[in-house]
Parts: sequence; structure tokens; C-alpha cells
Amino acid sequence: MRTRLSTEQRREQLLTIGAGLFAKRPYDEVWIEEVAEIAGVSRGLLYHYFPTKRDFFAEIVRAECARLLRMSEPDEGVSRLGQLTAGLDVYLDYAQHHADGYRVIHRAAAAGDTEIREIRDAGQAANRERVLAGLAELTTIDEMTKLAVRAWFTFVTAVILDWLDNPVIAREDLRDLCVRTLFAAVGITPPG
Amino acid sequence: MRTRLSTEQRREQLLTIGAGLFAKRPYDEVWIEEVAEIAGVSRGLLYHYFPTKRDFFAEIVRAECARLLRMSEPDEGVSRLGQLTAGLDVYLDYAQHHADGYRVIHRAAAAGDTEIREIRDAGQAANRERVLAGLAELTTIDEMTKLAVRAWFTFVTAVILDWLDNPVIAREDLRDLCVRTLFAAVGITPPG
Repeated sequence: MRTRLSTEQRREQLLTIGAGLFAKRPYDEVWIEEVAEIAGVSRGLLYHYFPTKRDFFAEIVRAECARLLRMSEPDEGVSRLGQLTAGLDVYLDYAQHHADGYRVIHRAAAAGDTEIREIRDAGQAANRERVLAGLAELTTIDEMTKLAVRAWFTFVTAVILDWLDNPVIAREDLRDLCVRTLFAAVGITPPG
Repeated sequence: MRTRLSTEQRREQLLTIGAGLFAKRPYDEVWIEEVAEIAGVSRGLLYHYFPTKRDFFAEIVRAECARLLRMSEPDEGVSRLGQLTAGLDVYLDYAQHHADGYRVIHRAAAAGDTEIREIRDAGQAANRERVLAGLAELTTIDEMTKLAVRAWFTFVTAVILDWLDNPVIAREDLRDLCVRTLFAAVGITPPG
């Protein structure tokens, strides 16, 4: 039962299957052959789309970063604090359900994998702009605020990676930790 | 004018010279031959103490971490907040005067250099115990506090690395940023 997909649909399908596998297993335990099998395509076709496992992984990270940004698009109908909280919920939920994928992205980026780092950094920069836009209504955005927000993103990543390895804290508590730390870092009292 | 030093003194001298060079120059721009020249010893003798540049660097990091811990030993005569502030001042001052060394330690650790990472992590763990001991007088130390403090150390490192590349913020402001973020992260009001 082979389905006839367009090039773009096939590419999407392969990336989705790959994201599912990389989410739950360490990088070295994902075989690209398995992706072909699940998709019901030949390995040759898979390699036609993604020449190496590394390329495949990088494209998955790129697609997932874009998806996460869309999923966490701020709702203009809620307060700035509500937008921040909702955005964090999306990221924490994603990390929880894609633990291995989340780990491998941040480890690869830290280990100097330039391509993965650039994809992650671009996603983080887009997110940072959102956070700064929200804060701009509450405080002056100066060099100190920008540095505090950049470092806060590192804090959030550290919190999440720590939590994934040792998930004893409730997700809401983790989110509240991130929220109150951001407000303290930028030196303002959280709006009520 | 060669000085006759004991084995231990000679080792100390070479480590101190090396720390000075690695502090101010990227790793790849430090030549071990220069260390021998400054110390007035043969390269052979230097290699006798430290077989490779990597070994030499690892021993410098070990010695500097131990030195930093001694330098930041809390003064029992001051408040917990005062101890925290003083400890941060020591680390910020050190990072400022050993910028390249500070960068290379954290980059090597992030990039998966196990030896460097273990040395850094041991220093950070000792420091974390100090911070937790101080906080124990102000709040309950539970899993949440421990996670918050671990992530806060990542925040401080991110703040410092960012600042070294773009030193537009005054050191005192950076220290106050770190202090208020720690208190918010562990969910307590800073003591007056």
C-alpha cells in the first residue's frame, strides 16, 4: 500500500517520521533505514532527499524549530505575562515529548556542530525578539536587559536539560521558575 | 641567570607562566616553547613535566580552579549575602583578567573535553555546595532549589562569557544581576 506523494509531501513525511524517532532515542540508535521502512520507501529514495544521516538530522532540527516557533506564536488577546507563560509551556511540553531530540540538539550545538548551532541560534534569536518585544512595554530595553535575556535563555535550556534527566519537578513549577527568574534578571516586578 | 628550583617549585612556576599566557591569548596561539623560554628551561624539561600541550593546559585549569576556590573562601565574619557578593566579585574579576583562559575552559567543557569538563564541574560543585550552605539559612533546600542553583551556575557562566565578548556593563551591575537572579530562582526575597 504505497501512497503517491508529491516531492514536498514525501519530504515532510520523512522529516516527521525522523523527528519521532530522534525524539525518543539517542542519535546513534536511530537508523536511517528504519525511516525508509516506516515510510514504505527505498533507502535510495531516502538518500536522494537526505544524502547523510547528519543532513537528515539537520533538516529535522530546522523543520522542528520552525514548527515550534509557529506553535508558540503569541496570542495577542492575552497579557504579556500570559504570552510568556504560554510560550514556555509550549517549549517545556515539546522538550518533555522529544527528550532525546532536545538533548542532541543542545549537545551538538555546544560541541561545536556549526550547522545545528546556527539553526538553534536562529530559533532562539526569534524567540528572544518576542520576549524583548513583550518586555519593552514594561521596562527600558538597554544593553543590560539584552544581556540578561540572552543569559536567561541559557538558564531555561539548562533547567530543561536538568529536568529531562531528573524529572522530579512538576512542569508548572518549572515554568514558574523560568518566569520569575526572567523578571528578576531584567530587574522588574512581574505584572499582576 | 638560571634559578635552582625544587621539582615542585619548577612545576608551579611553569603553571603560573602558562596561566598568564592562556589568560590573554586563544589556545591555538599559545606555544609551549614560549613557556620554556620565559622560564629559562629547555623544552625537554617542560615536556618532562607536561608531555603535551593538552596535559599542560589541563594542569593549569586544575591549579587555577583550586586557586579560585581558595581566593573565594567565604569570610565567616560577613552576612550570607555579603559572602555571595564577595564570591561573585572574585569570579568576575578573575574572568576579566583571564578572559581567553575562561573562554577556553568553558568552550572545551561544552565541546565534550571530558578532562576539562570534570575539572570545571568539580570546581563548580564545590562552589554550589557553598551557595547551598548559605541558602540553607534562608530557605528549605529541596529538589527545586538544587535544580535552580545548578541552572543558575549556567546562567552566571553565560553572563560572564557574554560580557567578556561585549564588556559594556559595569562589573558591579553584572554581579547584582547574578545576585538578584539567584534569589528569584530559589524563590526568596534577598535578605536586607
